[in-house]
Order: sequence, then structure tokens, then C-alpha cells
Amino acid sequence: MAKDLTLQEEDYSQWYNDLVKKADLAENSAVRGCMVIKPYGYAIWENMQNALDKMFKDTGHLNAYFPLFIPKSFLCREAEHVEGFAKECAVITHYRLKKDPNGGVMVDPEAKLEEELIVRPTSETIIWDTYKNWIQSYRDLPILCNQWANVVRWEMRTRLFLRTAEFLWQEGHTAHATKEEALIEAEKMLNVYSTFAEEFMAMPVLKGVKSPNERFAGAEETYCIEALMKDGKALQAGTSHFLGQNFAKAFDVKFLNNENILDYVWATSWGVSTRLIGALIMSHSDNNGLVLPPKLAPLQVVIIPIYKTEEQQLAISEKVSALCTALKSKNISVKFDNDDSKRSGWKFNEYELKGVPIRIAIGPRDLENNQVEIVRRDTLEKQTISIDGLVEHIENLLTNIQQNIFNKALKFRKEKTFSANTMEEFISILDNKGGFVLAHWDGTSETEEHIKELTKATIRVIPFQNEKEEGRCILTGKPSFQRVVFARAY
Amino acid sequence: MAKDLTLQEEDYSQWYNDLVKKADLAENSAVRGCMVIKPYGYAIWENMQNALDKMFKDTGHLNAYFPLFIPKSFLCREAEHVEGFAKECAVITHYRLKKDPNGGVMVDPEAKLEEELIVRPTSETIIWDTYKNWIQSYRDLPILCNQWANVVRWEMRTRLFLRTAEFLWQEGHTAHATKEEALIEAEKMLNVYSTFAEEFMAMPVLKGVKSPNERFAGAEETYCIEALMKDGKALQAGTSHFLGQNFAKAFDVKFLNNENILDYVWATSWGVSTRLIGALIMSHSDNNGLVLPPKLAPLQVVIIPIYKTEEQQLAISEKVSALCTALKSKNISVKFDNDDSKRSGWKFNEYELKGVPIRIAIGPRDLENNQVEIVRRDTLEKQTISIDGLVEHIENLLTNIQQNIFNKALKFRKEKTFSANTMEEFISILDNKGGFVLAHWDGTSETEEHIKELTKATIRVIPFQNEKEEGRCILTGKPSFQRVVFARAY
Repeated sequence: MAKDLTLQEEDYSQWYNDLVKKADLAENSAVRGCMVIKPYGYAIWENMQNALDKMFKDTGHLNAYFPLFIPKSFLCREAEHVEGFAKECAVITHYRLKKDPNGGVMVDPEAKLEEELIVRPTSETIIWDTYKNWIQSYRDLPILCNQWANVVRWEMRTRLFLRTAEFLWQEGHTAHATKEEALIEAEKMLNVYSTFAEEFMAMPVLKGVKSPNERFAGAEETYCIEALMKDGKALQAGTSHFLGQNFAKAFDVKFLNNENILDYVWATSWGVSTRLIGALIMSHSDNNGLVLPPKLAPLQVVIIPIYKTEEQQLAISEKVSALCTALKSKNISVKFDNDDSKRSGWKFNEYELKGVPIRIAIGPRDLENNQVEIVRRDTLEKQTISIDGLVEHIENLLTNIQQNIFNKALKFRKEKTFSANTMEEFISILDNKGGFVLAHWDGTSETEEHIKELTKATIRVIPFQNEKEEGRCILTGKPSFQRVVFARAY
Repeated sequence: MAKDLTLQEEDYSQWYNDLVKKADLAENSAVRGCMVIKPYGYAIWENMQNALDKMFKDTGHLNAYFPLFIPKSFLCREAEHVEGFAKECAVITHYRLKKDPNGGVMVDPEAKLEEELIVRPTSETIIWDTYKNWIQSYRDLPILCNQWANVVRWEMRTRLFLRTAEFLWQEGHTAHATKEEALIEAEKMLNVYSTFAEEFMAMPVLKGVKSPNERFAGAEETYCIEALMKDGKALQAGTSHFLGQNFAKAFDVKFLNNENILDYVWATSWGVSTRLIGALIMSHSDNNGLVLPPKLAPLQVVIIPIYKTEEQQLAISEKVSALCTALKSKNISVKFDNDDSKRSGWKFNEYELKGVPIRIAIGPRDLENNQVEIVRRDTLEKQTISIDGLVEHIENLLTNIQQNIFNKALKFRKEKTFSANTMEEFISILDNKGGFVLAHWDGTSETEEHIKELTKATIRVIPFQNEKEEGRCILTGKPSFQRVVFARAY
């Protein structure tokens, strides 16, 4: 079926751009680096939000909202944070426009801000400035807040969903009385992310710790989930940071502990973004278009009538109407596409492109035989199924598709996970196969940096409960006690 | 009960500020004019969002997301729009910071934008620039999009929820093939807003049209819902605009209609914001704190145990646990507050302040008699009720409270609606009684402007199906055929 998509094997990057556009997920806007998330793309994001929001609330978090703007001086309070974030960012210098004598409007030079404001690239600073007023004693702790918000990082090379100047995300910011509690929180939220990635996105992830080079600016430890895309590149899908007392010290947030001693508060922060939509696309989709896991698909089932006469159309509509009601009562989203300005072949193509998990076609002959034709999007297998028991069949099929997509992605990751013992092997794998490469590393930032310069690969994650193995660093030959996971990454 | 709230009758404005703060709804941030919406305030907003979002989707709208930034030149495209919005706004001029040799960071003068970007005060311009690419023929219409977003208007005098530099809102933007369809849409969404205001917020509203002076900058007609606050001032609670072809012309958005003729697209936009939280507070709350309608209350029922011994505590907990399960199964949100670091008197006070609709107290004697003590927040009436049938009683009581709050607000509005036939009467009512004042007006902008200068009152709304009545303008004595609704307003 021609969908004007570039083939994945020809040019993966172009395939991705084509698909995002053709499937009506997003597009570039008139503002450099900022995207428009179109309704179909946004509906996926809403489904992600709903699932995550429930998981956050079930683990005791509350939503709140903090200012979009951050005073420039706030960014400088935490020494490492400023290095990471106070660079490419949107800077507000004025608060008024006025009529331009040459036509149009101009910035009013008299309306200059005393201190510039930065559009938040992340909110640790403004939030810890706020928490200062909320926390006096251990009785005020923990604070478990999350916000759903837009953030801006002035990226020079942007790609829809993966890297844009403005993106949507959630950022959790928690405050704790003890180090232990904060560490537990950081790990708990990483587990929320991995559960979400695997059970909703059907995307297997490695869980573990980032190397210091890849750590969040201002964190003591960054936990992450790391996924493998179908072109063999890795994608960081979510991070959870143990911030120690760094931000409490930077914003002077102290509390009286239960022994009546003044101490700094312990912190975590954690976030996932609309980048996950990019990860979702590159985990499962194919040359026919999107493949969406049923749990996140805006539309799970589409029913397409095939008819010649008005009488046939009417008979089909009647049958389908009852079926739709039954499916909806099971919380299955379904659309009966009886738009007769479009041909059924066009529709088949379109819903395949959009990744609708199940497509049902029903014609006069099917009606006579009390059956329908079902095509599942993940395998494109076709089946003829009796209308009796169809609802139950669809319920099971959706579960089956969700599981199958996950299994395929897991199998792919296993096949694309290699071990390398020398730099030659390492480079050869990266260049010829892609994927995750397990290799020994001497544990220093310099070596990681050097490997990155040579190969464009970075340490994606040091898995939790990583197997201990004596070995020698692939670059320096220095002793190492474990392999870490390298890859080229988005 | 002392809650450190200023009394409404002493200083309404201070009472409002106290309440927003003490009830943990919101607070000012370190960024001038920007608020922090605290978890309890945000939970109200989430309930508002859920109800509205469902209503938008039930009327065929889809959510999408458009850029935060608007190129300066876009604001100038629509002549009236620029007058209204291109004034006090946040202007981004640079995209990078660098190390300041004097310490900290400074704006990098080399990273100046060619064209300044404005943080969206509203999104008509960027959205119509996007729609241009989405619309070729009548088959692409209607487009029915909504976005939930933050917007910024650089207000000099701010008040939490009512007027802040940054606020949260939704903005619907629709595109239509005919004028009639756009007019129907604008009115339909106003009806969604009035239904939401009355059925969820329990806040009666007047529906109608704005006078040209109060019209949205760039609209042909602005419809609004207008509510009356307990201090006798009016509050515009939502607007829906018929934009004609103004933005289509400004952004050159044409389509081939079904007669194959090229025409400009017709538009509407409509929005409500976190301002509604301010309206909710000022519609119902009293000197004891918030009064929240059950349909929007983050917590509908709180249960407070009263005990001396551990044995009593255990017996109560057991009983309450079953009750909580039963209530939750009816989708009633309930909290059992068994925190024994707080005294029950403190808790009574706190939940009254927070506006929880129903408070239940249960002690050892109650347990013996198989009963509980119930206090409803709206009237503070106390009742002793048998535990048998309690769930049903609570369900009914929540419905009853919702209705009673609405009835009280409606009665208040009726009592505070006056007619004035002369300027003296008009001013005397405004100064002594407040409220809505129905008066004749000659229909000119000049007269409205002059009345505003003299009295600070503006025309809030010209109600739909307004009664025709011959009369004379209170200011100019010129003939008039209807009374319009004046008030001083937020």
C-alpha cells in the first residue's frame, strides 16, 4: 500500500518525519523550534497523561502549578544547575510593546525589566524558592508535588517530539526529611515510569543509574529508563533524580527534624515529556505507518462498512450500531466510519497509517453469514469472526496485541544487545548493527568523554543489580568490575 | 471559631486575600504577578477541567497544542487585535545567557533574536497561521480545536486568580464554512459555559452580548456569562467570540466552498480561565471559610473520629473503613482523618475553612447508638443520623447542598438586581447597594465610556431575549428601547 512514506530501511530519519506528518501527529510551526501538536498526536499524549497522572496520585502525589518564568539570578544559585541550564534559553527582557512610527509595533525601550526572566527550562529553582515558605518542621514533610507544564530549551537542531524548543512534560518535585526517604522516592518514581513504559507503551526499558557525565545538572544521582528504537539507537525515556540537599542549600530550605535539630531538606525531581510520543513511534511502527499499543491508542477499533446499495448500508448500520454500543460499554473506543465520500480502500490505508489496533470490515455477505472481517494492525493478519461473541473476541485481541507488541520489542532489544571487548569490536557493532553494547569501562568521566568523541556512543545506563564481571576498559585497559550499557542515542 | 480571616463585612477584599492564603489555594511567587497554585487550589481547577473537557468533547471538540510564543509581527496582522493585546506583554529578545565576568550569568548580546517573540496573551494569531495549512476546501471544515494552556498578560495590579500576569485557561478556536455555522458554534459554547457555571459551580449567570466597548479585540461579537459576587461586584466568567472573517483575512485563510468558490473561513474563539476559582470563592464562601459546591470540591466528605482510648479508636476505625469503601463505590470522595497529632476541634475548623461539604464526627457513644453526627458546610446545620442508610443519606445531602448553594446565590442576585431611571438613582444604588443595575442607555460607546468615567460602572451584558422597553438613556436622555445590565466589575 503506498502511503508516501519513505521506507524505514532506506532512511529511518526521513521515515520518522514523514510518519509524524502523514499520521497527523504534529508539525513545525512558524516559531523556530516550536511544534504544533495536532489533535491525533495530542490524544496520545492525553492517554499518556491519564495513565501517569493516576499512577502519581496512587503513590500519594498532588498536582500544583508554579510560574512559567524564573528570575535570572535563581538559575545561578545552584552551581552545577546553572552550567546545565542557563545557556540556551528564552530570555524576557521587556514587558511592553508600543506603536512603531514605521508601522507595526516595536519593543518599548522604557519597559525594560530590572532583572531578566527566563522561560523555565525546568523548575527546581522556582519551586525550591517556594518550598522555603512551606517548610518549617518535619511535620510539613514530605511534600509530594507534580506539575504538568510546558518548558523551553532553545535547541538549535530540532525534531518533532524528540527535540523541540518548547515541549510538554510533567515534573515531580518532592521534599523529604531524610536522605533514605528521598532515595526511596526517586527509585519509586523510576519504577512508576518503567511500569508505564512497559505496560502502557509496550516498550521494554532498562532501569538503572546514569554515569556522572549524563547526570542531571544539580543531581547527586540520576536514575533513568532507557529504551531501544527500531533503528538501533537508544532513547532516554524518563529520569528520576536524587538531588541530595543541593537545592535546599541553594535556596536555604531548612527544617526542624524530629530531634528539634535544624537541617537542610532532601529532594528529588523526576520527569517525562512529549518525547515519549517519539519513543512510542520508533518502538513499534513500520512501513505501513503507526503501530499503537491498544492502551494508548486514541481509537482502538474502527468499523468500515462495505456496501453498494442504500439498503445494504442501512442493514449494516443497524448491526454495527448495536456492536458499537456493546464495545463502548466495555470501555473500548470505537468509530463507525460510514463517511461515504471516501472509498473503503482509502479508509483501510488511512487507519493502518494511524495505527488503529483493530480494523473491522463488514459487507452484505458478512451480514448474511453473521460474521465480520477483522485485521489486527500489529501483524496485519486477517480473520473472519462470527458476530456472536465478537465483543469478547475483541477484548481478548486488544490484550493480545498489547502483549505481542511488547514481546516483539523485547525480542528486538535482545537481538540488538551485544558485548564488545575491544574498541574495534565496539565500533564495528555500532557501525554495522547498532543497538546496546555492553562493555567494560574504567569508571572515569574522561574515558567516557573520549569514547563519545571517538564513536558518538555514550553510557546510557548502568543497570540496577548489574552483574559483576572482572574485565578491562575497552579504551584504557584499566581494570573494571562490570559492563555498562553503551549506545548511540537520540 | 477564629480563623484569622478578616470579616467579609469589614473588608471584603482583605477577606478574599486571607481566604485564598489560609485555605491553601494559591500564593504570590517570587516572580512579579505570577502565582503559585497550591495543591488544594489546583485540585479545584482539575475538577473544573474534567467537567469542561468532557463537555467540549461531547460537543465534538478535540484538544491540540499550539506554540507558547508568537512572532511580534503576527500580533499586528489584525488591526483591532493588536490594539487590545500588543501592549503589556512578555517580550523575548534573546535566546542565550553567558557567564558574567562580574559573577553569575548575563544575557549574551550576540544571541539577539531577529524578530522578538511574545509570550502568548491569547492564541488567535498563531493558530490561524497554522489553520492556513490545514484548510483547502469545505471538506476540511469545521475545525473544532481546544487547548489547555498558560497565557501571559503583563498586569500591573494583580490579585490571586482574578488578575495575574500568568494564568491557566482553555481556548477554543474553531473554523467554519459559513457565518451561520460560526454563530451557532459561538452560542453553543456560551451555553456550555453557562451550564457549567450553574450546574457545577452553582453560580447563576446572565447570558448575553457585550457592548462594543467590552468586545474582544478582533471579534465581531462577544457573548459572555456574567456573575454577581457577594460584595455586589460583577465578574465576567467566560466569553465566546464570533470572529467573523477577521482572522481568516489577516492570515489569508481561504477555502473552496461547496460551489467551488474561494471564500474566507469563518471563526470563533472561546475561553474560561483560573479566574473561575476566584468567582467560585466569591459566589459562596463566608466568614468561616470556603463553601464549595460538592461537584467541584476536591474532598466531599471528611470523617473525624473522636476517642480517648486506643480501643475506642480501633472500634471507630473499623466502622469507618467500611463506610469509606461504600462511599467510594458511589464515587464520593472521602477522607478519614485519624491523624492523632491534631485535635478534633482544630480539624473541625480546618475542614470548615477548606469548604468540605460534609463533615462527619463519630465517637464511642455514636458507635454504641449506631449513629454519626453530620454537619453540612453550607448551612452549618448539625444532624444525628443512623449509620444504616447513611450512604444514601450522604448522596442525597450532596445533591441537596449543590442545589441549595445555587438557590442562595440566585436569591442573592435577585435581591441585588435593581432598576435605575436617573443618574442619581444609578449612582446611589452603586454606592449604597452594589449589584446589577438595569438602566436605559442610548447605545453609543461615548455614553458608556462617560458613564464609566463618572461611576466606574460598565455595561456587563445585554441579555439574550432582552425585554423591549421604551425609555430614555440615564445619561443623555436620548431614546432607548431596552435596559442593559450595568455594574462595577472585577
